[in-house]
Amino acid sequence: MSSKKLRVLPLGGLGEIGKNMTVIEYDGRIVVVDTGLMFPTAEMHGIDLVLPDFSYLRDRADDIEAIVLTHGHEDHVGALPYVLREIGIPPVIYGGLLTIGMVRSKLDEHKLGEKANLQELPAGEKVQRGPFGIELVHLAHSIPDMRGVLLTTELGTMLMTGDYKFDQTPVDGRPADVSRLAQIGSEGLMLLCGDSTNADRPGVAPSESSVGPALLRQFEQCEGRIIVTSFASNIHRVQQVIDAAAALDRKVALVGRSMRKNYNIASNLGISQAPKGIFIQPREIENFPDEKVVVISTGSQGEPLSALRRMANNDHRDVQLHAGDTVVFSATPVPGNERAVNETIDRIYEIGATVVTAADAPIHASGHGWQEELKLMLNLTKPRYVMPVHGDFQRLRLHAELAEAVGVDAESIFRGRNGLPLEVDADGARFGEDVHAGVMYVDGVNIGDPDDAALHDRREISADGIFIVVATISADDGSVVADPEVIFRGVAFIDEADALVEELKDMVEDTLDDAAEAGNRKADLIEQDLHDAIGKLVYQRLRRRPMILPVVIEV
Amino acid sequence: MSSKKLRVLPLGGLGEIGKNMTVIEYDGRIVVVDTGLMFPTAEMHGIDLVLPDFSYLRDRADDIEAIVLTHGHEDHVGALPYVLREIGIPPVIYGGLLTIGMVRSKLDEHKLGEKANLQELPAGEKVQRGPFGIELVHLAHSIPDMRGVLLTTELGTMLMTGDYKFDQTPVDGRPADVSRLAQIGSEGLMLLCGDSTNADRPGVAPSESSVGPALLRQFEQCEGRIIVTSFASNIHRVQQVIDAAAALDRKVALVGRSMRKNYNIASNLGISQAPKGIFIQPREIENFPDEKVVVISTGSQGEPLSALRRMANNDHRDVQLHAGDTVVFSATPVPGNERAVNETIDRIYEIGATVVTAADAPIHASGHGWQEELKLMLNLTKPRYVMPVHGDFQRLRLHAELAEAVGVDAESIFRGRNGLPLEVDADGARFGEDVHAGVMYVDGVNIGDPDDAALHDRREISADGIFIVVATISADDGSVVADPEVIFRGVAFIDEADALVEELKDMVEDTLDDAAEAGNRKADLIEQDLHDAIGKLVYQRLRRRPMILPVVIEV
Repeated sequence: MSSKKLRVLPLGGLGEIGKNMTVIEYDGRIVVVDTGLMFPTAEMHGIDLVLPDFSYLRDRADDIEAIVLTHGHEDHVGALPYVLREIGIPPVIYGGLLTIGMVRSKLDEHKLGEKANLQELPAGEKVQRGPFGIELVHLAHSIPDMRGVLLTTELGTMLMTGDYKFDQTPVDGRPADVSRLAQIGSEGLMLLCGDSTNADRPGVAPSESSVGPALLRQFEQCEGRIIVTSFASNIHRVQQVIDAAAALDRKVALVGRSMRKNYNIASNLGISQAPKGIFIQPREIENFPDEKVVVISTGSQGEPLSALRRMANNDHRDVQLHAGDTVVFSATPVPGNERAVNETIDRIYEIGATVVTAADAPIHASGHGWQEELKLMLNLTKPRYVMPVHGDFQRLRLHAELAEAVGVDAESIFRGRNGLPLEVDADGARFGEDVHAGVMYVDGVNIGDPDDAALHDRREISADGIFIVVATISADDGSVVADPEVIFRGVAFIDEADALVEELKDMVEDTLDDAAEAGNRKADLIEQDLHDAIGKLVYQRLRRRPMILPVVIEV
Repeated sequence: MSSKKLRVLPLGGLGEIGKNMTVIEYDGRIVVVDTGLMFPTAEMHGIDLVLPDFSYLRDRADDIEAIVLTHGHEDHVGALPYVLREIGIPPVIYGGLLTIGMVRSKLDEHKLGEKANLQELPAGEKVQRGPFGIELVHLAHSIPDMRGVLLTTELGTMLMTGDYKFDQTPVDGRPADVSRLAQIGSEGLMLLCGDSTNADRPGVAPSESSVGPALLRQFEQCEGRIIVTSFASNIHRVQQVIDAAAALDRKVALVGRSMRKNYNIASNLGISQAPKGIFIQPREIENFPDEKVVVISTGSQGEPLSALRRMANNDHRDVQLHAGDTVVFSATPVPGNERAVNETIDRIYEIGATVVTAADAPIHASGHGWQEELKLMLNLTKPRYVMPVHGDFQRLRLHAELAEAVGVDAESIFRGRNGLPLEVDADGARFGEDVHAGVMYVDGVNIGDPDDAALHDRREISADGIFIVVATISADDGSVVADPEVIFRGVAFIDEADALVEELKDMVEDTLDDAAEAGNRKADLIEQDLHDAIGKLVYQRLRRRPMILPVVIEV
């Protein structure tokens, strides 16, 4: 037995723990499991994407043996271009077939495809990278080719499940590899890091293949056009929609950039199949009778620029919704998207079309296992230590309770947080010292800290607007040499703006006169005086506190 | 029979139809039913409140016979101060006892209390105002003293239900007045405008009085402190929490401004009762053993500044949450608030306290009737015409289907929208011509249009920031007389800001030189040139489009 330590460090943030990226370290060498991103909320004014803060890896590029990706969802792979650009290109990036296909397309878009060594690692095949044995274990999820990551060091093995369910009848006929999981359990698993997403749902998640027949039943009741929306990456869901359309002799149009892109990737890899001639182009939709068309569209989360949202706003080039259409939401809103989804649904109702959601019929199945599946994973793999991940604090606690329920010692269960590394050695396991974690924001081409003053300024200006005051004074004696300029933006509903601007100009001149009289010639001091005087007057008049930006020009 | 028309005009917006304010007109005279407001979403940068656009009433102050308020919720009374200030004070404002009490307190805060003639109109009492007979009909809701509004003209009677449920066992022992509703039906009701909020829920809403025993069962399982959060205006809910606390010999602290205010109003009116000595001050909480305390707090919707949110953030003066505390959410999230509520819950879990929600136990009951109740209302009142209101397009359609199911003719059911008046005369009913409706925003002390340029500017600046460029030129020959100033705010993560600023200053000087050479001396033309040149360079460098604000000073 070695005296070396295994460190498991979850990075990221925004509510979920150990979701987007995990750094596993042993003997100075590193494997990174997943490099995912998060999506900004409305409060993050103008931010495009949210990344895990991976500054822990800065200057460690040479220590990284491999990046291993569990599956192709954005919250598990989306940060990869940024990691490669900021940290460096590791020797190899492993994943399942579709995962590698999707990531290749993504890296090509970022002009990083040629530099990165992307390798499909077939499930069950073992490779050795430095001190790590690496093996992928086939599991089921709402995207094909989902893999758990089994890492073996001298200390023992650990399994990161990634996102998974035990679907006994998946669409591709390849259920989670329970035999291998059982074998791992009998060989002795040191640590299980398991998905907690649905730790609050009793029972077993419905099978993905139960969705197809339910969709077909819905389709059979539709006399007009059918528009189905789902996640573009849910290749098997899209496949089932195509199959149901084919069964009813309807044509299929794929609408939305990511829908077409993902279908093409999956189709090229042989993961998706469709009857010859079933597809029509979006612009051809109007050439076919309504009862002969199924549209598969992006926008299941009510995303502002998505194809479905445009349709609901009567603003889509190829699809004009009308009475008689049925829009089928084969997805549920991700928490936080409820309002956007509800708005989209109601606009469709306003148009006079009908909406069917997962509340009306079993036309959606979660990709994450429910409580009985989490217990099955624990019972199959019989881990010595358990670290629940992929969930908020509530779900981690519930997952921990499930682990206790199947007989794991309470002191062998580690409920952590992002930035808190679990350290395992021959003597046991414990949390180490906190590491700087959190998130980074992507704004245009730049990446930065959420505490950046610019974002504070955006919040301030977006709440109350901005006043800019330009005063021009003589460098010789501080006297006013041009009329002050007062400009405002984002200051709402001013009835008497002209009067206020005049009042402010007078105040600027008074302030400048006072400063000149007092012998105060320093521009920054005058600016401070202007800032305070103007802020006070604006608040008196408007009861708001816009940003005040005084500029003193000396000529 | 008169040839005059009755017009029913719903005003407002933000997804619900006929919710906040309805103008009823007959023979040139007006009754306004409800004057409610809406709450802004995160996309409405810095807006404080959203009001129905009631410009239709401008110059009609003299025609208003009365404002009638169904109940005291903000979405039914919150716009009243603005209506009184902008339109004028009507002769009388009617409502139930608590409604008038709450509105009096609100108008006093706005210094309008002395001018407004607020009158409690007891249920069943009829008054005549101009051509309108007015009667309030007692109904049940999640606030006491909820009243439907029965208006009688020469043409017949119409009933606006307001928000209601048929609670057979309400906490105050006063169920909805089904006898009067039946009588209205047998006398002949011309038009029913009915609440559609829960038109999608089959069955009957649980009684408010079923919540008390469920709360008591929860409380009995708690060994530490109990913190209950609910809507402050749900007086009967707060009463039931107090009763459960009393049964377990626990003290009660009311935390949060609106919780204390509403309780005081209800208590002064005799609507709330509590055992002597049960209340303690928030600052005294720590003086009592945990198992002897119940805190009743605002914040059930995760509101950023609410007492519960502060507790969850470890930032409340009087209540520090800790392991052993149980936080009971006796409320469900209003659509759109899910994320804020989830965040609050998860922070409480992070602290180590336990959370109980309406998903865990029947500790909440909706204040809006479900499908069977909407049908009962229709069957009791037997309306000739039905206009479903209080809901989005989906719920209005479902409510219309319920009306058809109980036998109302499809052509007698009118699914409208805000701004579309229903007109009824001796010949029948039909929609009239659209009226300008929509919403107005309140920003500080000012009210204005959502399309105000200021809000567009806020969105632009909050997305990408702002660059301000000040150029000082000679009025004589256009030559540059001072170094240009380049200032930016809200522009995130610029690695080489100094270099960019220098580059921009050079470009400003070049642009000014070009303008001087070309004989272009007009400040506004130079500003346009600067705007375009700087915008282009900034986009090249940052891939963002911040607002560019050039200022040319001539000396």
